[in-house]
Amino acid sequence: MAVMDMAAIANPGRMMADGIPWPDFAAGTGELPEGVDWFDFWASRGDEYERFGQDALDRGDTITGGDALWHASLSHHYAQFMWFHDPARREAGQKTKAELYIRAAPHLVPAAERIEVPIDDTVIPGYLRLPRTQADGYPCVVLIGGLESTKEESLLFENLCLDRGVATFAMDGPGQGEMFFDVGMVPDFERYTSAVLDHLIDRPELDGSRIGVLGRSLGGYYAPRAAAGDHRFAACVAWGAAFDISDLDQMPPHTRAGFLYVTKKDSEEEAREQLRRSMDLRDLAPKLSCPMYLMHGRHDSIFSMHQVDLAREHFPADKIEIEIEENGDHCAHNMAAIVRPRMADWMARKLGAGR
Amino acid sequence: MAVMDMAAIANPGRMMADGIPWPDFAAGTGELPEGVDWFDFWASRGDEYERFGQDALDRGDTITGGDALWHASLSHHYAQFMWFHDPARREAGQKTKAELYIRAAPHLVPAAERIEVPIDDTVIPGYLRLPRTQADGYPCVVLIGGLESTKEESLLFENLCLDRGVATFAMDGPGQGEMFFDVGMVPDFERYTSAVLDHLIDRPELDGSRIGVLGRSLGGYYAPRAAAGDHRFAACVAWGAAFDISDLDQMPPHTRAGFLYVTKKDSEEEAREQLRRSMDLRDLAPKLSCPMYLMHGRHDSIFSMHQVDLAREHFPADKIEIEIEENGDHCAHNMAAIVRPRMADWMARKLGAGR
Repeated sequence: MAVMDMAAIANPGRMMADGIPWPDFAAGTGELPEGVDWFDFWASRGDEYERFGQDALDRGDTITGGDALWHASLSHHYAQFMWFHDPARREAGQKTKAELYIRAAPHLVPAAERIEVPIDDTVIPGYLRLPRTQADGYPCVVLIGGLESTKEESLLFENLCLDRGVATFAMDGPGQGEMFFDVGMVPDFERYTSAVLDHLIDRPELDGSRIGVLGRSLGGYYAPRAAAGDHRFAACVAWGAAFDISDLDQMPPHTRAGFLYVTKKDSEEEAREQLRRSMDLRDLAPKLSCPMYLMHGRHDSIFSMHQVDLAREHFPADKIEIEIEENGDHCAHNMAAIVRPRMADWMARKLGAGR
Repeated sequence: MAVMDMAAIANPGRMMADGIPWPDFAAGTGELPEGVDWFDFWASRGDEYERFGQDALDRGDTITGGDALWHASLSHHYAQFMWFHDPARREAGQKTKAELYIRAAPHLVPAAERIEVPIDDTVIPGYLRLPRTQADGYPCVVLIGGLESTKEESLLFENLCLDRGVATFAMDGPGQGEMFFDVGMVPDFERYTSAVLDHLIDRPELDGSRIGVLGRSLGGYYAPRAAAGDHRFAACVAWGAAFDISDLDQMPPHTRAGFLYVTKKDSEEEAREQLRRSMDLRDLAPKLSCPMYLMHGRHDSIFSMHQVDLAREHFPADKIEIEIEENGDHCAHNMAAIVRPRMADWMARKLGAGR
């Protein structure tokens, strides 16, 4: 895939609101030197941040070290981003990204504690971060990524929650990030978020009666599944609507490639069949018992406004609040400075943060 | 001045590392609607953030409110940025920016306390912020802006210092921000930083023996003046070298316009004469008694590498550490993710933060 295709697929608002420095973005989407492709460019930015971060750690500058290793992780994320056509490099990039974040985690402010929640014969990996303010039992929000976004990308959004007194648990579910290697996309994502909830409820730092769930992009499909499927969740945010995604053919080509990849099926036909059978919230939606906030950009080119209409039709009307951003793109990443604090506020209020 | 001129003068690395969201930058440097100039565009972004922030405050979402009012302030800063050809609008923009920051200050995390340090028949305005960690007497760094940058722009850099246990006091000096209205550029900037120091030393939250000073861009001239002129400063950072700026004609045209403006002289000849007489560190430099870190981008198009050579020649060799960023532009704003944490680390170490 040519470099310019990647630059066209990448959402600049997302990249920079998640922490990619503008100079890297500008260089990576500009003309690259002969023989350097998109993957090479971002991997090399990652390598440079890694060196800088390790030097800082060696000097004892742990905050800079953690910050730079996170930058390194995020750069490697964008190396392998949408790199579905070349699984070997994609998987190497995914692993490098995850390893760098493991090294960054104890040095982040506040620190991220890696947790591996057992399920079946594998684990659900995630990071727990606690607010810097003191409280007896923090509320907590479980953060779910999307088709190709993972627990390593949510640091800046976590900070918004943490500043508002809400602990965060960013996880990879089936088909996502580290978990993809063991488990591809599944029909019952809610079984995994319930396993996470079992763990979080037992954590002494948290108040198990005030745990919310928030999902972004395809996570806007998973989070409502999680909440409707387990009434212990106290609040739910869908950062982008995705209700019925059973028809692979309605998606842009690169999104389709991503779905084929994460299902881990041998043939496109099998993948298509799995989506057709399972990726629809019609059955679960009426069971939602907690408040839900759904934010959607009208100009979303991946999930159309039809998804919002379905959500309005099927979720209990007294539970769902819908916010349409008239100028918003996918996940309203082009309005991050507005929509992100507002989602964090909503979650903090519903979970009674600061109480 | 045409819109494209402003877009050419503005440093994108600076704007985004200081907090301008990328979508605003992209829209503001792209084609603007008929009848909308650079000033209009940024003022209108500021107005939108102000509405959003005030709504948040009205709902009780104080963190979002403070953050959005800061975004509003920063947008209005870029409206009047380098707008020297149109003093009425520039001054209105400057005042709007300052007022919005006053409204944001108590809601920032951590909060900013506005302080007005009396001097002569006016005051030096500034904002004190304290780290969130507990300590008996915080070290503190005085932050100085440049030719057209002010105390409202340093929030994100302040956060780096605060996370490292160093309190911050961001100030406007003569010719800068709010103080410009009363006092233009002066030869003895150090008299103003000493007045600030008199105040900070008396603050019970601070350790008066551990106060540093850091200046950015033209502040890279002021901060060493402050430190060499008052031996109570314990450490100094020059974020960009500026040593001898007595020759107006060596500067790019828009920088020259800025100098003419901030001197508040009636004629270009008088302004030129003031610079010729006073803007040179040769007399003070040998008196520097605290450690100093000077960081300079080799490709700085405003202050050349000659400024670094002069600094190396005149400051005591056992006091000065010089770091040249080979790929850096003015203030190495294009490498903010690297140079900013490193400067904060250096200052924190010299001030014994965390002790």
